[in-house]
Amino acid sequence: MDTRIEFGIVDGIATVTLVNPAKLNAVNAAMWRGLRDTMRRIAGDDCVRCVVLRGAGEEAFAAGGDIEEFLTVRATVDDALHYHDELVANALDAVRDCAVPTIAAIRGACIGGGLEIAGCCDIRIAGESSRFGAPINRLGFSMYPGEMAGLLALVGPAVVLEILLEGRILNAREALQKGLLSRVVDDEKVFEEVAACAARICAGAPLVARWHKQWVKRLMSGAPLSDAEKRAAFDFLATDDYREGIAAFLGKRKPVFRGR
Amino acid sequence: MDTRIEFGIVDGIATVTLVNPAKLNAVNAAMWRGLRDTMRRIAGDDCVRCVVLRGAGEEAFAAGGDIEEFLTVRATVDDALHYHDELVANALDAVRDCAVPTIAAIRGACIGGGLEIAGCCDIRIAGESSRFGAPINRLGFSMYPGEMAGLLALVGPAVVLEILLEGRILNAREALQKGLLSRVVDDEKVFEEVAACAARICAGAPLVARWHKQWVKRLMSGAPLSDAEKRAAFDFLATDDYREGIAAFLGKRKPVFRGR
Amino acid sequence: MDTRIEFGIVDGIATVTLVNPAKLNAVNAAMWRGLRDTMRRIAGDDCVRCVVLRGAGEEAFAAGGDIEEFLTVRATVDDALHYHDELVANALDAVRDCAVPTIAAIRGACIGGGLEIAGCCDIRIAGESSRFGAPINRLGFSMYPGEMAGLLALVGPAVVLEILLEGRILNAREALQKGLLSRVVDDEKVFEEVAACAARICAGAPLVARWHKQWVKRLMSGAPLSDAEKRAAFDFLATDDYREGIAAFLGKRKPVFRGR
Repeated sequence: MDTRIEFGIVDGIATVTLVNPAKLNAVNAAMWRGLRDTMRRIAGDDCVRCVVLRGAGEEAFAAGGDIEEFLTVRATVDDALHYHDELVANALDAVRDCAVPTIAAIRGACIGGGLEIAGCCDIRIAGESSRFGAPINRLGFSMYPGEMAGLLALVGPAVVLEILLEGRILNAREALQKGLLSRVVDDEKVFEEVAACAARICAGAPLVARWHKQWVKRLMSGAPLSDAEKRAAFDFLATDDYREGIAAFLGKRKPVFRGR
Repeated sequence: MDTRIEFGIVDGIATVTLVNPAKLNAVNAAMWRGLRDTMRRIAGDDCVRCVVLRGAGEEAFAAGGDIEEFLTVRATVDDALHYHDELVANALDAVRDCAVPTIAAIRGACIGGGLEIAGCCDIRIAGESSRFGAPINRLGFSMYPGEMAGLLALVGPAVVLEILLEGRILNAREALQKGLLSRVVDDEKVFEEVAACAARICAGAPLVARWHKQWVKRLMSGAPLSDAEKRAAFDFLATDDYREGIAAFLGKRKPVFRGR
Repeated sequence: MDTRIEFGIVDGIATVTLVNPAKLNAVNAAMWRGLRDTMRRIAGDDCVRCVVLRGAGEEAFAAGGDIEEFLTVRATVDDALHYHDELVANALDAVRDCAVPTIAAIRGACIGGGLEIAGCCDIRIAGESSRFGAPINRLGFSMYPGEMAGLLALVGPAVVLEILLEGRILNAREALQKGLLSRVVDDEKVFEEVAACAARICAGAPLVARWHKQWVKRLMSGAPLSDAEKRAAFDFLATDDYREGIAAFLGKRKPVFRGR
């Protein structure tokens, strides 16, 4: 079976592709492990400025987990813990913890595990005919709590529960209205808009993007900032990129950032 | 006066109806007590798979509290504490804590206490001409903090304050846009859509619905999951319904769940 | 240079105007100090029932900070701490902590510091052609975490990160959809709608508005209410305005509140 996580970097933009063409890119155990490890590897690569996550082809981002596999890989509580905590939840955390900006490029089905992955990205750009949900109430099992964090942070408990309790499939406009998506464009323009979004991110200072992710995450913890943290918030003052950014603004020209 | 909480169960779907036809279903002290006790009773009934909350008739969900009654039932701080904490806040908590999915079916006025009740349900389906607000700034009193929790969890502090400070009545489209509603349909289709929603909920495994509500609530507390809780998240593995759900999926047929 | 914070009170409505016509009302250090001190002064004035924050003219609410000034006023970490913590963050906190309702009246550019100020108001009313963002990733610096609190409370981490990472300028409809705005009206109707909103606020009991702001803020802290706080929630029972509000309701006339 041709199932894998594809990975490539072009001009500082990493693309991570979920590949399982026979099952609308349903994510199996090997792919969850691959996604986890790939995202962790990106964390250590200073050349990457932005990550695009997508499904192979145009039919699906990912249509959920691989149900057939459940009979073997999560037959016992220990197996299920390994599958959902070690593989799935850790893969999702690796997406959420990614130091650089992440964009989910969504065409077609974005269901179950696919929705969980998209919900852990920073920006979600979807086509008009894409669809969203997690109809596992009809499969007789509940979502692992460790997999809910990204969706809860994104849309809050009411929307998460609406999706889980009803098991309904939402269209792109509904998903946008409920805060699940950053924007919706024509199907054939999804990758164009994702490229434009990535270009906007890459036109900014790379360290600034990392700091913004870091500080927002830090603030969400709720604890007040220490004096040392307040001072660290001005680390940009010592960077070449800050001088370049201000000089370019005052000179009315485009800045050229080098990430230092 | 014909004021009461009606209650009935048909095919696992409980319907709780606010009845006060002379006052657009305004909720008085006896009705708050009835709502509290009814919701608590449902908590102990394993036959119920879904609860629909609605107002009697088509003119109102509930137009608020019963203002005339305030002169007698909450004249002192002790009386007010009994009314708002023992009756209202506990009734709202009983709705929020309901173990099975709850749907608010909203036609017409959904004001004050009515809005508080709807905000504590899992799903809110409203008609195009329904209207929302809590214009108590013009009555000279503030909302009891213990009654705000559901609305704050649903839409956050900014929308709650906009409603309370301005005292404006919102139409259904505004309420949807602000996250107060799950969806809006034509007035005459509200109960049809609520029935379809309840049917979707009842087509899922009953235990799964209860687990989803339980885990989302647990995660909102913020504390990390213990190892025992992580294992408990896989209690579904031991259920007949899980085996049925997977078998039905693989057999491309509809599952029949029995709640065990 | 004509840069200042204008301040005036008419009929209990205070208007705070950001004035820097040469730079689309960009907020400089002196203006941040002025905003902070003005908002703190309002806190002690019992005559004020509502505060409107706006930019001078019709071109901008505020187009950000004053970039040129950065070369001198925040050249070192100590200077930056003074600028962003003592001036900016404290000014924003003074807006958020304002005891009476605040309305941002937004025409044109609402960028960077301007967006931060608007995000700390209770209600945001904007014109169709207004625009929103914080494209500082292209200036090579990150937003001070102490300035993010209002926006995070308003729209959550996903929308804040989308704005910061991409540095894109949003139009009014997108800003509304993402929860950044309370409502959008035709450009030429912004101040009319703000006046109507302020009139609705002023038609309510002044103490009730203050209590609503206080209790929502208190609940967002997460700690359970003490018995003393629960009793304090009924302080309205002892006010003239409560008696007036109920009497007017029962007498089917407009109440006249005196703030006591």
